[in-house]
Amino acid sequence: MRILIILFCLLVGNTLNAQDDKTLRSIYDLALTESTAYENLRHLCKDIGARLSGSAEADSAVLWGEKVLNNLGLDTVYLQEITVPHWERGRREKAYFYNEKGKNAVDVCALGGSVPTGMNQFIKGEVIEVQTLSDVNSLPDSIVKGKIIFYNRPMDPKKISTFSAYGSCVDQRYSGAIEAAKKGAIAVVVRSMNVRSDDFPHTGSMGYELGTDSIPAFAISTNGADYLSDNIRNFKGLELSLKSFCKTYPDKISYNVVGEIKGSKYPKEYITVGGHLDSWDLGEGAHDDGAGIVQSIEVLHLFKLMNIKPKHSLRVVLFMNEENGNRGGIHYAENAALENEKHLMALESDRGGFSPRGFSVSGSEKQLNSIKKWANLFEPYGIHDFKMGFAGVDINPLKDDKICLIGLSPDSQRYFDHHHSDNDVFEEVNKRELELGAASMTSLVFLIDKYWIY
Amino acid sequence: MRILIILFCLLVGNTLNAQDDKTLRSIYDLALTESTAYENLRHLCKDIGARLSGSAEADSAVLWGEKVLNNLGLDTVYLQEITVPHWERGRREKAYFYNEKGKNAVDVCALGGSVPTGMNQFIKGEVIEVQTLSDVNSLPDSIVKGKIIFYNRPMDPKKISTFSAYGSCVDQRYSGAIEAAKKGAIAVVVRSMNVRSDDFPHTGSMGYELGTDSIPAFAISTNGADYLSDNIRNFKGLELSLKSFCKTYPDKISYNVVGEIKGSKYPKEYITVGGHLDSWDLGEGAHDDGAGIVQSIEVLHLFKLMNIKPKHSLRVVLFMNEENGNRGGIHYAENAALENEKHLMALESDRGGFSPRGFSVSGSEKQLNSIKKWANLFEPYGIHDFKMGFAGVDINPLKDDKICLIGLSPDSQRYFDHHHSDNDVFEEVNKRELELGAASMTSLVFLIDKYWIY
Repeated sequence: MRILIILFCLLVGNTLNAQDDKTLRSIYDLALTESTAYENLRHLCKDIGARLSGSAEADSAVLWGEKVLNNLGLDTVYLQEITVPHWERGRREKAYFYNEKGKNAVDVCALGGSVPTGMNQFIKGEVIEVQTLSDVNSLPDSIVKGKIIFYNRPMDPKKISTFSAYGSCVDQRYSGAIEAAKKGAIAVVVRSMNVRSDDFPHTGSMGYELGTDSIPAFAISTNGADYLSDNIRNFKGLELSLKSFCKTYPDKISYNVVGEIKGSKYPKEYITVGGHLDSWDLGEGAHDDGAGIVQSIEVLHLFKLMNIKPKHSLRVVLFMNEENGNRGGIHYAENAALENEKHLMALESDRGGFSPRGFSVSGSEKQLNSIKKWANLFEPYGIHDFKMGFAGVDINPLKDDKICLIGLSPDSQRYFDHHHSDNDVFEEVNKRELELGAASMTSLVFLIDKYWIY
Repeated sequence: MRILIILFCLLVGNTLNAQDDKTLRSIYDLALTESTAYENLRHLCKDIGARLSGSAEADSAVLWGEKVLNNLGLDTVYLQEITVPHWERGRREKAYFYNEKGKNAVDVCALGGSVPTGMNQFIKGEVIEVQTLSDVNSLPDSIVKGKIIFYNRPMDPKKISTFSAYGSCVDQRYSGAIEAAKKGAIAVVVRSMNVRSDDFPHTGSMGYELGTDSIPAFAISTNGADYLSDNIRNFKGLELSLKSFCKTYPDKISYNVVGEIKGSKYPKEYITVGGHLDSWDLGEGAHDDGAGIVQSIEVLHLFKLMNIKPKHSLRVVLFMNEENGNRGGIHYAENAALENEKHLMALESDRGGFSPRGFSVSGSEKQLNSIKKWANLFEPYGIHDFKMGFAGVDINPLKDDKICLIGLSPDSQRYFDHHHSDNDVFEEVNKRELELGAASMTSLVFLIDKYWIY
């Protein structure tokens, strides 16, 4: 009898597995043949382009997102109103120094949120190169006063995940101006968060602190940083001239865009997928995070195409303002708490539209292990990487002791080549890689909706 | 006592594993910081460029390879003489047809080895679109006679490995002209072996058959193929005009370039790593197979840098003529048999310099399983894919019942975007992805040399 029960379980187990196998195959087949993700990305990048919070392009992106979701025939599409910061770069920045060859221009850009150098003027000062925030802290005020601090710590090429290299390096971009200003510096220049050697400066968010002077902050390209560093070694007292035109305006109204398929069995319980609709103002926000937006939309599109009716309510959220405030993500979580919405799982794609390798899980060991049990289903698609880790900025405010937060993990090697810079453009996204990511997300959502309970 | 023995084995096992773990970490660290692979690739692509067998550039590549290997301080560097085919494209090809908009040029190129259309003349004929070789076989001679056969079967986007899509599609390129000529066609045009929609025609090898007419053969870009197909549907009897200037010259002398570190324990037993030095004449042969060349060289460079003395003799072979004859690979195997060289393993990299995912093993189940046991060592580097499969064209002639043939398996999604076309250029190779591939190859060679016996 016991053997019969075991046999029965094995058979049922295998049958379920074979059905799921078939469903995943259909999801990938459709994603690779009928997906609208790539064409949606083309529109978002080419017809709208960069879309920093508060910009006219961000407004257009909201309208575009609403329209695309409406065309999917979902049960509900609506906007969530938020206020967002509004910062503009203005004209492109300039930087130069003199050496024995004459005047050398280097590629820089203002960091996001920076104050300008002021009234169409260059700031000029001797450059002090440092590697870390504590290097600055340990310098006497008299040395730093009136100087420009140049943070030149590179991303560690030895880290296999470039996100891990970024994480251990980005403090100089975020807090560099604060620490330098405390010592009396007049500006900071930060080596771009880019592992590659090239001429693109990479912007990104930075902070100021109440009670400390706000000084202009710039990113310099990796090639520019190496060149500047060489010259500082060779020319004692080298002076750098910097000019920027950026400005912070009053906050503006903007929106998260939300679409929903009502759950057939647990309509009050939610599975949310999303990315962020805003981008930095350089490039076209293709990998960051146009890719995540169109992949998240594609999850619901594929559910519709396959006529899968989810048991839980399935939501796509196009979050606003991830890049410089995360007000969309915070508002979404606050509103979910207010409405007493139970979130079973939230899945974010915000690591570029590259070949998917797995999922980064922020939840319980039990949740991770339950995903790992599906490894054989994902194996034919090259999805092997199921690890505990950070899931995503937009969904992170949803964190509680029940929800499982998950981030799509694509191959990370090329991501920071494009991150927050002029070359994050549509042409750099590969159609198949984008589609495989969307299929992987859809497959995971399908399995969680089918097998998990809140 | 038995428990003690088990405990001892576990401890020793763990120690060995911890040592290997450390060695692999050092290999990856060095590859990501001290590798010369990327700069070698820059020279090969930018200073030499495309290097089809028999060309002056192929001669330069041989000299370059010899010089680079000599600089590594190996125990031996030598050339293996072979004769290679010599085919030249001449001026770029032309193709056009007329529709209601007037004259439409489409992007084509001659397939490698094709005869020309002749004496600076256009060939003109009605186009018959087919999907397969058997489509042509089943057409009456009277229909095909004097026409141009257009093979338009696309690579199947649903196949996750693009190599598998290529394998089930490339027969129309290789045998298309033969089958069409048997029926009296005057030329063939073949849809490029490219999953992506773009304007690049992709060349590649094709065959003729004794006793069957040799007719000119062209590849057409995927966009061009779609456009031509639309027009064939809309304009009954659509005629295409084609011109090519290619020519086959007498065979030439060329060389495999070989470098060797003598084995400390089994000097007469060999581990061979390699790629192919020749490339098609379009683009720069960056992914195909400059990447494999510089990665293979890097394996020996890393052994040298780390001062690892292999037990078996470790060879790098820069094979000549993979693309249109494989005479280098065949000669290498024949010579190995003649010299009674025992090959323990041969490893080839010829699938592009993309992020490595694993290894494709052509050997015994026992060999595959022994590699799979190292999965935990490779896991930190994202290498998960250990499967039976084809290893590589150059090393394939070495196949016997003892040797294990292995191919590096990088992510395949972007490979055919660049394969045999103008856009297979240095800029499309990512430095880190290239280096991670070299580190993965070096790690595998290190482990096999350490643990395997012939």
